Amino acid sequence: MKNKETAILRIHCPDQRGIVARVTEFIYQNNGNIVALDQYTNTAEKRFFMRVEWELENFLLERNDIAAVFGPLLGKPLEMVWDLKFSDNVPKMAIFVSQSSHCLYDLLARYKAGEWKVKIPVIISNHNNLEEVAAQFNIPFFHIPINKDNKKEQEQKELEILNKHQIDFIVLARYMQILSADFVKNYPNRIINIHHSFLPAFAGAKPYHAAHSRGVKIIGATSHYVTSDLDAGPIIEQDVIRISHHDTVESLIQKGKDIEKIVLSRAVKAHLERKTLVYKNKTIVFE
Amino acid sequence: MKNKETAILRIHCPDQRGIVARVTEFIYQNNGNIVALDQYTNTAEKRFFMRVEWELENFLLERNDIAAVFGPLLGKPLEMVWDLKFSDNVPKMAIFVSQSSHCLYDLLARYKAGEWKVKIPVIISNHNNLEEVAAQFNIPFFHIPINKDNKKEQEQKELEILNKHQIDFIVLARYMQILSADFVKNYPNRIINIHHSFLPAFAGAKPYHAAHSRGVKIIGATSHYVTSDLDAGPIIEQDVIRISHHDTVESLIQKGKDIEKIVLSRAVKAHLERKTLVYKNKTIVFE
Amino acid sequence: MKNKETAILRIHCPDQRGIVARVTEFIYQNNGNIVALDQYTNTAEKRFFMRVEWELENFLLERNDIAAVFGPLLGKPLEMVWDLKFSDNVPKMAIFVSQSSHCLYDLLARYKAGEWKVKIPVIISNHNNLEEVAAQFNIPFFHIPINKDNKKEQEQKELEILNKHQIDFIVLARYMQILSADFVKNYPNRIINIHHSFLPAFAGAKPYHAAHSRGVKIIGATSHYVTSDLDAGPIIEQDVIRISHHDTVESLIQKGKDIEKIVLSRAVKAHLERKTLVYKNKTIVFE
Amino acid sequence: MKNKETAILRIHCPDQRGIVARVTEFIYQNNGNIVALDQYTNTAEKRFFMRVEWELENFLLERNDIAAVFGPLLGKPLEMVWDLKFSDNVPKMAIFVSQSSHCLYDLLARYKAGEWKVKIPVIISNHNNLEEVAAQFNIPFFHIPINKDNKKEQEQKELEILNKHQIDFIVLARYMQILSADFVKNYPNRIINIHHSFLPAFAGAKPYHAAHSRGVKIIGATSHYVTSDLDAGPIIEQDVIRISHHDTVESLIQKGKDIEKIVLSRAVKAHLERKTLVYKNKTIVFE
Repeated sequence: MKNKETAILRIHCPDQRGIVARVTEFIYQNNGNIVALDQYTNTAEKRFFMRVEWELENFLLERNDIAAVFGPLLGKPLEMVWDLKFSDNVPKMAIFVSQSSHCLYDLLARYKAGEWKVKIPVIISNHNNLEEVAAQFNIPFFHIPINKDNKKEQEQKELEILNKHQIDFIVLARYMQILSADFVKNYPNRIINIHHSFLPAFAGAKPYHAAHSRGVKIIGATSHYVTSDLDAGPIIEQDVIRISHHDTVESLIQKGKDIEKIVLSRAVKAHLERKTLVYKNKTIVFE
Repeated sequence: MKNKETAILRIHCPDQRGIVARVTEFIYQNNGNIVALDQYTNTAEKRFFMRVEWELENFLLERNDIAAVFGPLLGKPLEMVWDLKFSDNVPKMAIFVSQSSHCLYDLLARYKAGEWKVKIPVIISNHNNLEEVAAQFNIPFFHIPINKDNKKEQEQKELEILNKHQIDFIVLARYMQILSADFVKNYPNRIINIHHSFLPAFAGAKPYHAAHSRGVKIIGATSHYVTSDLDAGPIIEQDVIRISHHDTVESLIQKGKDIEKIVLSRAVKAHLERKTLVYKNKTIVFE
Repeated sequence: MKNKETAILRIHCPDQRGIVARVTEFIYQNNGNIVALDQYTNTAEKRFFMRVEWELENFLLERNDIAAVFGPLLGKPLEMVWDLKFSDNVPKMAIFVSQSSHCLYDLLARYKAGEWKVKIPVIISNHNNLEEVAAQFNIPFFHIPINKDNKKEQEQKELEILNKHQIDFIVLARYMQILSADFVKNYPNRIINIHHSFLPAFAGAKPYHAAHSRGVKIIGATSHYVTSDLDAGPIIEQDVIRISHHDTVESLIQKGKDIEKIVLSRAVKAHLERKTLVYKNKTIVFE
Repeated sequence: MKNKETAILRIHCPDQRGIVARVTEFIYQNNGNIVALDQYTNTAEKRFFMRVEWELENFLLERNDIAAVFGPLLGKPLEMVWDLKFSDNVPKMAIFVSQSSHCLYDLLARYKAGEWKVKIPVIISNHNNLEEVAAQFNIPFFHIPINKDNKKEQEQKELEILNKHQIDFIVLARYMQILSADFVKNYPNRIINIHHSFLPAFAGAKPYHAAHSRGVKIIGATSHYVTSDLDAGPIIEQDVIRISHHDTVESLIQKGKDIEKIVLSRAVKAHLERKTLVYKNKTIVFE
């Protein structure tokens, strides 16, 4: 039963009376059975957010007609920013890595086990030492070294590969390069990074060194959508672990890997299930 | 703005198409502005749960008429179990204690600081050593010692006090007596207990001794509604802390106090804000 | 047995072979029974840290002679920074507050319940609204309002009160004033603050507003020793709680109170039990 | 510097004055440089526990002579249970699996990345569907199906494989078979299991179903040494995650995988670094 195909509608718009009533009435009138509904009103911003998912079986509108009906009926009159997805649409995800394998293995192990509805057509790296991991999972690997002189053309090469494979979104699984603003604008809110600190603490390079130096008692990891502003994009997920004075920079790096991979995977899962909505540099993550 | 009075409707009923649409339509048609809506469908049980809160200002129905309209219109046809509360109704809470003061102080400090919308007309104990704490906060204290011979009549005395003060719900703030089934049935899902373990592990007496003996690496506390089945009622909230081999039974008792009081307070807060719904010995706690 | 009086020796010194052997030999030769020993070597700094606690009963040296023997024998030759305390010495703690009562109640409830070996001779505030709380617990309360014009003389007044009551250390239980460097130097590593963020994120004023604005998914609290550098002193303890997009600044403030009081209390407990050692702006907290 | 070879001595014995002094004196006299020392006294049991690690470089005793000197000098007189290991001894670990790959991938990814000092000569399973994973990492895989009729002989076959590969310890990475007491006694405190619940809650089969049925708000995972008593061996590590009424049995199983693999890996790491000591069905885990 849980494998029935569903439509997923994500909305945000100016708040006003009756939005839930009108959207759910639309689904009800077309004989849709809602399986999940989350809404949230930001009263300070007077903004309404909603995610609603309903079964396509017996729905009176053809799936290709839903948007064409919903837009004029509700989307436009209520000034909605909205999108509509279908659960059987399997997104294509590219993974960017550098030299650390922990996040990559975690993603690929889930992929291989069929944990997620996703395709991974390509892995891209500025180093070649994880080519072997890509080979273990039979995924095409592209080694695209980047330095400050060749960045523009190398990113162009990456974009071509991504386009060729019709990539929907990118996961930076400890990719130790800063993407240019030009690159980022091709995938707005569709590049997910894992930063190895509890942002906004210790943004930038070498966060474990900085955490050790400051003497914190807890370290964290943060997954966020990438914007042109380094480590400042909308946060999707964070988690922490307790450390002590016994920890060295090396043991922080080691312990941190466990939360990095878990936090990144939770963020990717939320994105894949279309549970995220970005507004004004914050991410609403529906349950 | 956040102090505007609201109506809070809690519902559960057999799942079917259109429940959200019909309930929100009812509110919308009467000019209600929804400030919070949470719904959840238990697909295995085919049961629908919902909590919706809307502003009373400009609502077209008088607050005393809402139930009379809603019941025949939706409650009965959709076979709902439902209740309706108003945010300006301040519940009356009785606290039962024995000899430990940590939960009591935590509750009273919040009460005194105005953190919660609640009245505390009475504290009842089977010991007299916390009378002084009650006096610090000017709350009437009743010392009602209980043993196996006088339990029936002493519980009767307690019920009289509770009735006299029109108590809505009871918080057992480390009350080390087992309430009789006869007593409990007067306050169904309206007695909140804190048990000093991560239930269902270590139910019953001396959970910290049992945890120490088993050598667990984490201890917990559980707040639940009291049923006639000891420590087996619907769980509202749980939390844990990490311990180590260094901990003795005494240090577990000490450390445990901090999670006991926090977990109990979170449960009381959820109850006060009418965010809980009990069904088949489980508690749905809306965000 | 656990109430036997003990001596507590805290040491740090340049690392070299044989320190543990020589210190424990000193205790053993004098017939001391060690009940706790923690040591830690910072290999990067080549610095050795140790806390050792032994029973005074049957110890061959009089307690007043221990320091006089230990200093020339080991302290000086090994270039130790060290201190010696006795478990029956009950420290005197002053509490500074402003307008929020949650940390104050938490501290006083523990005090009243005899949870800690401490005396609280005085509460000082720049506001008078918590005078009533002090009165509930019969603790002298001094209202010392501070503004930028009278800061120097008012801090002088505070120091006189502290001296008169022979205060050993100060707890800033949400005291919303910045202490001058002149004031701080009177109590080096003996002023404990609670900051309502996960430092170093959101140092300074209004951290919950900043956390809300940044859209973090977790908030924290940090207890640290106060230095002349605002919110940058050596961290003693931190903890966090998970939040969501539903949280407003107000709900963050409310939820944050629970971790603030718990984190502050853990830090005070570690300090009281002489389990902290400060070196180069970091705090070693022995288990 | 951190790669200097070390000796690791683990001890427990009846508590008495002078143990630390005598052990550290032994190391000091032989010119050993202690890099880690942890001790713990269980006062209720009057039992002393210690782990001490020192550099072998410049140590005056040959590594093969240390035990021969230490035993008569201290081990026997102080009635110690003790063992001595060297950091350059790389243990051989066998992994047992059934059908779930998450723990296996997590272990193998760490192995491949060189995170641990360990060899993995063999993977054994009662099913064949993870043979492919073993092949990805070039590790011999043995498919040994077990049913109630062939258990004795199949376990015999397993023991032969383990012996042939000189296996030091076994990790049950979600191996869904109960090992016989006869099998277990070959590897006392050297078989590490991961149980998918917060033990002692939900021991036995289908813990996520039981957790869902009870309506807990937190689920956990427990890693322990295997004894002949099912799910009742000495606990090494536990951790938990928060869940909600939204979770189904399926989502609990999914979320649980993340803590299972992390908890199991932490336990394996502690075992590999010789940081565990088992006494009376509890595990001391030194930092």
